[in-house]
Amino acid sequence: MKFELLATDGRARAGLLSLFHGDVETPIFMPVGTQATVKTLSPDELRALGTRILLGNTFHLYLRPGLEVMEAAGGLHRFMNWPGPILTDSGGFQVFSLSDLCRVDEEGASFQSPLDGSRHRFTPEKVVDIQKTLGSDICMVFDECPPYPCERDFAEASLNRTHRWAGRCLTRFREVCDPERQALFAIVQGSVFKDLRLLSARQLAAMDFPGYALGGLSVGEPKDLMHAMLEAVEPELPRDKPRYLMGVGTPEDLWECVERGVDLFDCVMPTRIARNGTLFTSRGRVAIKSSAYARDFGPPDPECDCYTCSNFSRAYLRHLFRSGEMLGLRLNSLHNLAYMLRLAGLIRKSILEGRFSAAKREFFSRGEQP
Amino acid sequence: MKFELLATDGRARAGLLSLFHGDVETPIFMPVGTQATVKTLSPDELRALGTRILLGNTFHLYLRPGLEVMEAAGGLHRFMNWPGPILTDSGGFQVFSLSDLCRVDEEGASFQSPLDGSRHRFTPEKVVDIQKTLGSDICMVFDECPPYPCERDFAEASLNRTHRWAGRCLTRFREVCDPERQALFAIVQGSVFKDLRLLSARQLAAMDFPGYALGGLSVGEPKDLMHAMLEAVEPELPRDKPRYLMGVGTPEDLWECVERGVDLFDCVMPTRIARNGTLFTSRGRVAIKSSAYARDFGPPDPECDCYTCSNFSRAYLRHLFRSGEMLGLRLNSLHNLAYMLRLAGLIRKSILEGRFSAAKREFFSRGEQP
Repeated sequence: MKFELLATDGRARAGLLSLFHGDVETPIFMPVGTQATVKTLSPDELRALGTRILLGNTFHLYLRPGLEVMEAAGGLHRFMNWPGPILTDSGGFQVFSLSDLCRVDEEGASFQSPLDGSRHRFTPEKVVDIQKTLGSDICMVFDECPPYPCERDFAEASLNRTHRWAGRCLTRFREVCDPERQALFAIVQGSVFKDLRLLSARQLAAMDFPGYALGGLSVGEPKDLMHAMLEAVEPELPRDKPRYLMGVGTPEDLWECVERGVDLFDCVMPTRIARNGTLFTSRGRVAIKSSAYARDFGPPDPECDCYTCSNFSRAYLRHLFRSGEMLGLRLNSLHNLAYMLRLAGLIRKSILEGRFSAAKREFFSRGEQP
Repeated sequence: MKFELLATDGRARAGLLSLFHGDVETPIFMPVGTQATVKTLSPDELRALGTRILLGNTFHLYLRPGLEVMEAAGGLHRFMNWPGPILTDSGGFQVFSLSDLCRVDEEGASFQSPLDGSRHRFTPEKVVDIQKTLGSDICMVFDECPPYPCERDFAEASLNRTHRWAGRCLTRFREVCDPERQALFAIVQGSVFKDLRLLSARQLAAMDFPGYALGGLSVGEPKDLMHAMLEAVEPELPRDKPRYLMGVGTPEDLWECVERGVDLFDCVMPTRIARNGTLFTSRGRVAIKSSAYARDFGPPDPECDCYTCSNFSRAYLRHLFRSGEMLGLRLNSLHNLAYMLRLAGLIRKSILEGRFSAAKREFFSRGEQP
């Protein structure tokens, strides 16, 4: 993995991230392919709409189809036929939020599968091994993700364990993984406590990971607290390494968090709200089921050139949505991801041209609010 | 509309049907786009997998999005962005099978919408008017479709009314439709009573429709009864006009019914069983959820060159199906339609080359049974 910082504008950064399966221009939004598929979309469509890197979920893939299948398939890329880069999370967030009867100890976490109740155990070493099998271009350390709100004592104890786990992940990664093919990112935690976030960033920075994620944010805390955490941590993170804000975000989040030094984003929100009938557009959000669009034969977003906007009307998308037709969910998802990818490209261009702040003001003045 | 009979082999026929929106080589299978979409698939995919003509449903489109939207859209082609030929059924079958509180009289049929309970009335004239608005290349007459089994007296009375309705449809069609853009097909009924079927074919043939459909078959009767009806009716149908067997069928049905003189087919079955996880293949049907495919990384059908078979494994399709992922339903649907379209092409080629019977024997000897 190589990361080249090409330009900065304030704290906003434009870079080039070179991974084993291809290059990624940053800032970038990563569509989420939880179960070895970005919901409703094919790899060809993802490529056509501008996707450069996908996110996969270690927790889900470990449980189904399972590691034996992933091993036999030759990894996640070949299994899902996605030739470009893939980042996998460590499963930490899911173990603590989705599994049943989760118990954490110093060594790792034991949990039951939400699919069939079977018992499993993740350790830092196991999670690296799984991501080796998946063949992810970017692997994540196994971390504990505290809920919001949480007590300071809990956050601190959890943070210290997360740091010890990060060290064990790094050791294991160096033992078993090929650094030409894979890279391991650390995850900064610390809930909404500024001093803990600073401590986390400093300790992890000292361990010399090739990249740094910010975890445990966008879990229910107010936006200004999330922004404050980013602002506190940013100066502590190595300037020459990529920063990834996990589970974020909206179009507005991209502007706000790039402004605070973030390079990589992922979020299920654009595809989830697409399946619920909401489209991002250059003139604000559109709830496609509204009767206002019954005879609106214009494109969903007149400024968008995606397959959906080039070929179908709002009236048709409304009809598909009301009729419960899957094609509607596909076309909505495709458009919202095309919107996010184009937005990331616009933000990047504005940084390269030194007019990030003006571009951001223009975006917000056009009424593209949540 | 123009129909050219290019070759025959026994009763099997290869033809060229020229419609306002394009040419269709027959025999052909028509994917069903009930609600202005072939479930899960985009128009681009339909084109790529070999679709030449689609079926739309008058009953469904009339109820939702409704005629005002279809009128404002400029017809069904533009609404769904399908540039090729479209055949619409008359809604007869759906009025009698899907609607609530249906009452038939000499003038037409009154029914309640299964969507919202609203009251509606279809007459032969109204059904032609709706299909004029939809802009279908091929329109169907409004008919009554008796259930199976039914009493002979009922079938006979229904048949006579269906013939009177066919005459009224033809009169209306000549008044309001442009024969350069649209064509109206008659529907032969008569349940499983051979003499009624003969009477129906003769009476409708005398009315000089540009094409003839066989309705009220594949509604629960044994296959040999269906075949007997086809054999009885076939000599009565004008040789120089296309014949369409409504709601049929399976791969096996294509062979059996082309052998008995049919040119056009439609059926929801290939896409419905795809959504239930069953794939047609050159080696028989595959129930993709079977654990036998958990680590089968070969293509779904090694003899198929569709997008699904060119890019994904049985193991991946099984994973998608078990995970409830829509991409699986898409890829299965795409493959099954590609299979049906390729099969229609193979059958046509065998007729043109005068080896239909040998080709049929070969197909059935390869174990492609239901």
